Amino acid sequence: MSGRIRVHYSVRVENQRDARVRADAIAREQTVELPRGGYPSHLDDRIVGAIESVEPGAPGQWRIIISYDPFTAGDDLPQLMNLLYGNVSLLTDIGIAEVELPEQILDGYAGPAFGLDGLRKITGVYDQPIIVGTIKPMGLSSKDLAALCSTFADAGIDIVKDDHGITNQPTAPFDDRVRLCQQAVATSNERRQGSTLYVPNVTAEPGEIERRVEYAKSAGCRAVLIAPGLTGLGAMKALTQMDVAVLAHPAGSGSFLRGSGLPAPFLYGTLFRIAGADGVIYVNAGGRFPLTEEECQAINHRAREPLGQIRASLPIAGGGVDAGRVEYWIRRYGKDVGFLVGSSLYAQADLGCAVRTLVTAVADAS
Amino acid sequence: MSGRIRVHYSVRVENQRDARVRADAIAREQTVELPRGGYPSHLDDRIVGAIESVEPGAPGQWRIIISYDPFTAGDDLPQLMNLLYGNVSLLTDIGIAEVELPEQILDGYAGPAFGLDGLRKITGVYDQPIIVGTIKPMGLSSKDLAALCSTFADAGIDIVKDDHGITNQPTAPFDDRVRLCQQAVATSNERRQGSTLYVPNVTAEPGEIERRVEYAKSAGCRAVLIAPGLTGLGAMKALTQMDVAVLAHPAGSGSFLRGSGLPAPFLYGTLFRIAGADGVIYVNAGGRFPLTEEECQAINHRAREPLGQIRASLPIAGGGVDAGRVEYWIRRYGKDVGFLVGSSLYAQADLGCAVRTLVTAVADAS
Repeated sequence: MSGRIRVHYSVRVENQRDARVRADAIAREQTVELPRGGYPSHLDDRIVGAIESVEPGAPGQWRIIISYDPFTAGDDLPQLMNLLYGNVSLLTDIGIAEVELPEQILDGYAGPAFGLDGLRKITGVYDQPIIVGTIKPMGLSSKDLAALCSTFADAGIDIVKDDHGITNQPTAPFDDRVRLCQQAVATSNERRQGSTLYVPNVTAEPGEIERRVEYAKSAGCRAVLIAPGLTGLGAMKALTQMDVAVLAHPAGSGSFLRGSGLPAPFLYGTLFRIAGADGVIYVNAGGRFPLTEEECQAINHRAREPLGQIRASLPIAGGGVDAGRVEYWIRRYGKDVGFLVGSSLYAQADLGCAVRTLVTAVADAS
Repeated sequence: MSGRIRVHYSVRVENQRDARVRADAIAREQTVELPRGGYPSHLDDRIVGAIESVEPGAPGQWRIIISYDPFTAGDDLPQLMNLLYGNVSLLTDIGIAEVELPEQILDGYAGPAFGLDGLRKITGVYDQPIIVGTIKPMGLSSKDLAALCSTFADAGIDIVKDDHGITNQPTAPFDDRVRLCQQAVATSNERRQGSTLYVPNVTAEPGEIERRVEYAKSAGCRAVLIAPGLTGLGAMKALTQMDVAVLAHPAGSGSFLRGSGLPAPFLYGTLFRIAGADGVIYVNAGGRFPLTEEECQAINHRAREPLGQIRASLPIAGGGVDAGRVEYWIRRYGKDVGFLVGSSLYAQADLGCAVRTLVTAVADAS
């Protein structure tokens, strides 16, 4: 069965007989979507999923592995998602515990255009974690946000990005904001001989995303932020053709995880990577969100592990990180990681001083 | 508080004090994303959500209503989704029970270009439900799928659509399939003086979606199928500018519902409608999926109720419908509804006969 897509399901059923019935239903639901006998029987071999195993799982759960011919996943991300989680997303007694993608699928995706190594080149940060800060909140003017950019850049942060909720509100319209923020960072870079990267949020509707990327590039930006959980994965993949690095934000992506949906390590570490994220922001353990440290470790691992010909993505842990804890996280996650630090900086009276302390702490701990 | 976006949350907490703490956290998480004191205090009034009520809900749950200034929802679907469900999607103790959108938001969306009335004009079906059939499964050749189209059209079905899993697989590449299927339906229409509509699936990546729509139109198609749960809502909205009717398929959309995410009536009846679906397919009660009849009734209601200047969408109940049960469903749902009938037809020996029986049953019961 090598060369096939293998999906591990976790299904709430009473006993093995029910588990087998459910396995048969899933194998058809995700492919022919018809009961046996309603289609030419020769399709059973190639199109219908093959049940590989049915085993007891956690209490009240059965673990089912079904493999699919890569043919069924078509030639794009929406159909891959459809095969993995299309109708199954609507079946609340079925969760997905693991997904294994074969070479034939991986070969169909170019992945990140820059990747982890590319982000290191663009930021000039080697041998230590890349530090990411956020300008916020929405409601501030473009000028105020640009002033925050100056503060972050002057303090030597590696990347300063828009908050994902800052899009095109009238207080800071996209073009106006991006021009001023990029200018602020460029001015700081010149003065300090620094290479801080300003990353605007281009999450928007189709067409407008591309327009914003072009505008950002013309203003001098070399990377953009997008939330594929809000735009669809395909919109992120399209950016890999636009000669700009891409950071993926997790807003909205919790929908894929909820109710034992897709596993977080696969979603962030594999799927977002395949879909072209040079950096993948995830909600770190120890912050405001419920991912465990084990899940975060697994995301880091999958973002960086060999995966066909696809470049590694930079996993970026957001939340639970501050100057006091960076040493802990570097010990756990290694240096090939990003740290997104937001609220804890703003909670301090002097933002610039808070950023400098963090930057020093990361350098010291690396 | 009229004129504001009102979101009803259902939150798992022990007592009212914890509920109030959680309410305050949500109101900031979805807007400023900063603890109090980390931003200019004048933003508290306009940007941070206003807690309208905190009441006991179902056992172990508290019901919290927070209202937001429409400003915070920006000017597009991704930011509206972000405000409603961005970071909240990642917080598994928080569900959304209801969403109320004010005029100011509704005025920003044109909704369906054709809507329920437009679909009636295109299909020529008035005063009774619109019947939708599906050609499948994937793995059949374009020629075989076109033969199925002929069978459906000859039997007088109103709409015959691609299965949502049929995209561009080598056995039936998009252009080839759409040309043959549309031809088959047109030939049948001419012979019978019928007006069956063939609806190809254009779910794909950005750019390719638009190319497929243009191809389909050039082949004579007047409507297309897309799964916004796989492509993002923005991709569906973009189709409303392409002079083609749009049917929304629910594949992948279960991710928004799972774990008490968004409520199904809002998702299908309001959000998909705002995003431009002329017809909204949902998984009906009594089929293979867990929606209740009450939820389906609420979807029907919201798809058809007055909603600013936005046209009504045709709610299309998929699953649980066959010739024997159409009378029941018409009594429950009324005539301004579509019925998507799939598996039960294919399970019968003579597909054409099965479709004719269904068509007659719907006419008789209307």
